[in-house]
Amino acid sequence: MSSDLEIIRNTLREFAAERDWNKFHTPKNLAMALAGEAGELVAEFQWLTPEESQKLNKDQFNAVEMEIADVAIYLIRLSDMLIINIYEAAMAKIHMNKSRFPSQ
Amino acid sequence: MSSDLEIIRNTLREFAAERDWNKFHTPKNLAMALAGEAGELVAEFQWLTPEESQKLNKDQFNAVEMEIADVAIYLIRLSDMLIINIYEAAMAKIHMNKSRFPSQ
Amino acid sequence: MSSDLEIIRNTLREFAAERDWNKFHTPKNLAMALAGEAGELVAEFQWLTPEESQKLNKDQFNAVEMEIADVAIYLIRLSDMLIINIYEAAMAKIHMNKSRFPSQ
Amino acid sequence: MSSDLEIIRNTLREFAAERDWNKFHTPKNLAMALAGEAGELVAEFQWLTPEESQKLNKDQFNAVEMEIADVAIYLIRLSDMLIINIYEAAMAKIHMNKSRFPSQ
Repeated sequence: MSSDLEIIRNTLREFAAERDWNKFHTPKNLAMALAGEAGELVAEFQWLTPEESQKLNKDQFNAVEMEIADVAIYLIRLSDMLIINIYEAAMAKIHMNKSRFPSQ
Repeated sequence: MSSDLEIIRNTLREFAAERDWNKFHTPKNLAMALAGEAGELVAEFQWLTPEESQKLNKDQFNAVEMEIADVAIYLIRLSDMLIINIYEAAMAKIHMNKSRFPSQ
Repeated sequence: MSSDLEIIRNTLREFAAERDWNKFHTPKNLAMALAGEAGELVAEFQWLTPEESQKLNKDQFNAVEMEIADVAIYLIRLSDMLIINIYEAAMAKIHMNKSRFPSQ
Repeated sequence: MSSDLEIIRNTLREFAAERDWNKFHTPKNLAMALAGEAGELVAEFQWLTPEESQKLNKDQFNAVEMEIADVAIYLIRLSDMLIINIYEAAMAKIHMNKSRFPSQ
């Protein structure tokens, strides 16, 4: 059975192959695309107070959801190109953070 | 049964709760943290040619894997705070992109 | 006599005051705005080869010039809010880099 | 007489030439370096409230000043490689913004 991340990864593989876009999808280029989308995401919040960022209106929510999708797409595509397993990498990093920041 | 993304999300919820970090995790702050990590990720590739970015050495690979983990962690945490389903959002965006960029 | 950076700074001060925008211009918010514009700037180059990035066509050049202006504006505004002198800071950093990376 | 921006630009030209770094300084690479530094800058503010970002302690201030220098350095270097005049570009953009956002 496939995981969520694998289904998105496979859908993106097919999408890129059908458009002959693999030639553009070097890790360098995909990291840039991800940074660009992260910039658009942070821009959605730039003039909001922290409190306002917790109570987005419908338009703000839809815009943020779209940017989150874009960041996820490039993150998953970049990881696929490098054969990095996001699930394993994230869980390993959280494990490291548990040692770095022990809870009381 | 839980998906990959749900397992990471739940692990991060527990991690933040144990450290009393929810108060820092406003969407505004998490979007900034994600942008910061995306900056560190793009920096790993800045002086590499596109070809070199496809053949990372062990140190480069490990550094990139760590940054990918950090971006994933903040992306999943931000989505959780906003009750956004990354899987649904990404699949919907890919569907939109299929109309926007028809394949031959 | 005023320097280039001071003229831009003063023009931005006036611009913000006339619109009552000082309340939005906390360093936190301005750093986010700068990161957002840096994301738009990097996005202009994401699918170009390094060689293509050296030979922008007119449309690409105009888009990049606009993003460079936006980054400059938020960088100068942020520095003004924090009373940081960009000229002094940049020259001091270059001086440090000379020790860090000695030339042959 | 040289302006502030021109003095920094010329110092950076000399710095790069002495180290034979011009080959790395394509606009694509410099835009990535700038995005990386903007990420480090935004990270300095990520857990601060807007109010705290206005009252940095000495360590925070020094770290922010260094990141502002790094962003300025790559912005000026990128503009030099593309023969873009930051002063002209920023003043033109502010002029456009005056039309876009008329004051009362």
